[in-house]
Amino acid sequence: MKLLILAGGAGTRLWPLSRVNQPKQVQPFLDSVTLVQQTWRRLRRRFAARDIFVSATKANAGLIKKQLPELTSGNLIVEPVARNTAPAIALAAKIMAAASPEEAMAAVNSDHFIKQPDIFLRLLITADKLLLKHSSSIVMIGIKPAYAETGYGYIKLGRRLPFGGKTAVYQVDKFVEKPAPARAAQYVAAGNYLWNSGIFVFRPQEMLNLIIRTAPNLARGLKKIKPLLNKAGEWTVKQSAFLALPSISIDYAVMEKVKHCLVLKADIGWTDVGHWRAVYDILSPVPNSNVSRGNYVAVDSTGNLVYTSGKKIVSTIGLNNCVIIDTPQALLVCPRARAQDVKLLVEELKKKKLHKYL
Amino acid sequence: MKLLILAGGAGTRLWPLSRVNQPKQVQPFLDSVTLVQQTWRRLRRRFAARDIFVSATKANAGLIKKQLPELTSGNLIVEPVARNTAPAIALAAKIMAAASPEEAMAAVNSDHFIKQPDIFLRLLITADKLLLKHSSSIVMIGIKPAYAETGYGYIKLGRRLPFGGKTAVYQVDKFVEKPAPARAAQYVAAGNYLWNSGIFVFRPQEMLNLIIRTAPNLARGLKKIKPLLNKAGEWTVKQSAFLALPSISIDYAVMEKVKHCLVLKADIGWTDVGHWRAVYDILSPVPNSNVSRGNYVAVDSTGNLVYTSGKKIVSTIGLNNCVIIDTPQALLVCPRARAQDVKLLVEELKKKKLHKYL
Repeated sequence: MKLLILAGGAGTRLWPLSRVNQPKQVQPFLDSVTLVQQTWRRLRRRFAARDIFVSATKANAGLIKKQLPELTSGNLIVEPVARNTAPAIALAAKIMAAASPEEAMAAVNSDHFIKQPDIFLRLLITADKLLLKHSSSIVMIGIKPAYAETGYGYIKLGRRLPFGGKTAVYQVDKFVEKPAPARAAQYVAAGNYLWNSGIFVFRPQEMLNLIIRTAPNLARGLKKIKPLLNKAGEWTVKQSAFLALPSISIDYAVMEKVKHCLVLKADIGWTDVGHWRAVYDILSPVPNSNVSRGNYVAVDSTGNLVYTSGKKIVSTIGLNNCVIIDTPQALLVCPRARAQDVKLLVEELKKKKLHKYL
Repeated sequence: MKLLILAGGAGTRLWPLSRVNQPKQVQPFLDSVTLVQQTWRRLRRRFAARDIFVSATKANAGLIKKQLPELTSGNLIVEPVARNTAPAIALAAKIMAAASPEEAMAAVNSDHFIKQPDIFLRLLITADKLLLKHSSSIVMIGIKPAYAETGYGYIKLGRRLPFGGKTAVYQVDKFVEKPAPARAAQYVAAGNYLWNSGIFVFRPQEMLNLIIRTAPNLARGLKKIKPLLNKAGEWTVKQSAFLALPSISIDYAVMEKVKHCLVLKADIGWTDVGHWRAVYDILSPVPNSNVSRGNYVAVDSTGNLVYTSGKKIVSTIGLNNCVIIDTPQALLVCPRARAQDVKLLVEELKKKKLHKYL
C-alpha cells in the first residue's frame, strides 16, 4: 500500500510558534524532531521509503525536503497553495490511480501524536486487507475517546462486521460535527461513538469515483489538472488550475456523504496536535506539572506550558494552568482551557492587518 | 530650603524592566519621561534647580546626569554603592549641614507618583515653616489612605497641633510596620492612621544629632567619611568608608526611634511606584481596562498591564488582571494581585545564580 503524509496545512491554532511560512508540522514542538519527521519515522517502522508520499505546498516544500532526507524522488506532491484536504487528497489519488492502481493508499496527517505506533501501523495493514473484500469502501481509523473532547468530530458506530483478529470493525452509522460539552459527554458514556482521527485508507480510483458523485465541483476542476513530474522529482500542477478547486476538507466534501464507510476502533494514544492544550497534555509527565522548553523559573505556579528560545528567561509568580509561547516576534499568553481560541486571535490579527505576525 | 532626590535604589519589584544597572527611576514607566525626570520636574514647579540635589550611585550617576540636564554642578552626590536610605540621607545631611546650615532639607524619593503636585509642593513649604517653630522635629508627609494597602507602613496620629492654614498637623504617635489585610482595614476605618510616604523635611544638623542618638554605628562610620567635590562637580566618598556604613533604611535606623516627629496630613493622589500593581493603578483610565506599552492585541481579556518593546506583539485570550512584562532578556507573567511577590522571584533568581537576568 501507499502512504500519503498531508503536510500542507497551516496550523494557525499553534500560533505564534506555527507561522504561515513555518507551520507546526515543520517545527520541533514535542522534542528535537519536527512533527512531520515524527510522522515519517512512525511510518518507516513498517513501510519502505519508496511507498511514502508527502503532500506539501510551494511555501514549505523546501523545508520538508530538508527535514525528510529519505523522501524518494517522485514522492513529493507540491501544491501551489494550500486548498484544504479535499484537493490535496484528490490530487494524490489522481497521481496514484495512474501509477499504482492496484494499491490502496492511506491519508495520514503530519501533525498527529500517536503513543502506540505499532498498533497504529497494524491497523493500517488491517485496513488494507479489509479493502480486498470491501474495495469500494473507505476505511477510517476511529479513536476510542479518552474524555469528552469538544474539538474533534465523532463517528457513530453502526453494525459490527464479522472480521477476524483483535480489531473491531464497524460500519459507520454517521459522522457528527464537533459537539457541545454535554453532547460530547453523552457520546463518551454511550460507548458507540469514536473520535474521527481524519486518517483513512482507500483505493485511489475509488476515491476519484466518490468525488465525482459527492463533490462535482471538485471533480470538474480535477479533470483539468495534469500533474507533472519536474526534474527535481516533484509533482507540480498549474497554479491557476489548482486555485480553481474549491477549498474544502475531505470530510465535508466526501466522507460525510459516502454510504460505505467502515471504521476500525483504535486505542493507540492518539492526539491531534491541534492546539496548545493538546501539546501540554502530550508533554506533561504528571497532571498539573509545569512543562517548559527554554529557560523557565516558576514561583508558586503549576500547570503551565512555557515555550521560549535562546537565552531569554520566562518567569511566573502565582500563575496556574496557562500557556505562554514566547518567540522573538510575538508572545501569546492564555489559559490552557482557552487554547482552542487562538484561532480567534489569528482572525483578530488579520482584521487588524497585522499579517506580518502570522 | 534644599531638596534631596533619593535616586540610588534598585527597585527589584519592578523586574524585569527595572534592572540592577537600569533601575526603575531611570526608566520611562508611566510616560515618555523617566520617574526621576518626573520627580525633578515636579520640584522645579516651585524650586530653583540650584536648590535641588540628587543622591545617586556610581552605577547610575551617568544616566541620571544625562536625564537631568538642569542638575547643577555640585548638586550630585554619588554613593560608591547603594546602602539603603539611612547612609544616603546621612551623607547628604553632612554635606548640607556644612554648606547651608540654616536651611531645612526635604528628602524626596525618585519613584513616587503624585497626582496633585502643587498641593504636595505647598506641603513642603508648610513643613519648612513648621521647622522655624519646631526646629528639632522631623516633619513627615503622611498620606490619607485611599484603601487598605498592606505594602505600606502606617503612621498613627497623636495630638493635632494648632497650626494655621488648611493643613492638618499632628504629632506622630507611632510608626506601624506593613500590616496584615484585616489590620490595614482597621487602620483605614479608624481614620487616625496615615500612610508613611517616606518623604520628610528636617534640618540637616538636627538629623546628624538624631543619628548620633539613634544609630551610633551609622554615626561612627559617618564621622570617618569626608565627602569631596570632584572636578566634575560631583560629591564623592571613599568606597571602603562608605561600605563600612550599615545598610539600613532611615525609617528603621532613625525615624521610628525619634520622639519629636510631626506629620502633615496629605491628600495628593500619592502612589509609591513600588510594584506592577501600583503602575497599573496609576495608568488604568477606568477600572479593569487593559493598559499597555507597545503592541498588544487582547481577545476577551481585561485588566491586564502589558509592557513590550520594539516590533514585538503581545497577545492574550481570556486572560484577566495579569501583569505581562516582556523585555528582550526576560519575561514576567503574574496576576496583578501577586505583583508584590516579584521580590520572591528575584530571590529565586539569585538562589539559582541567574544574576545576569537581574
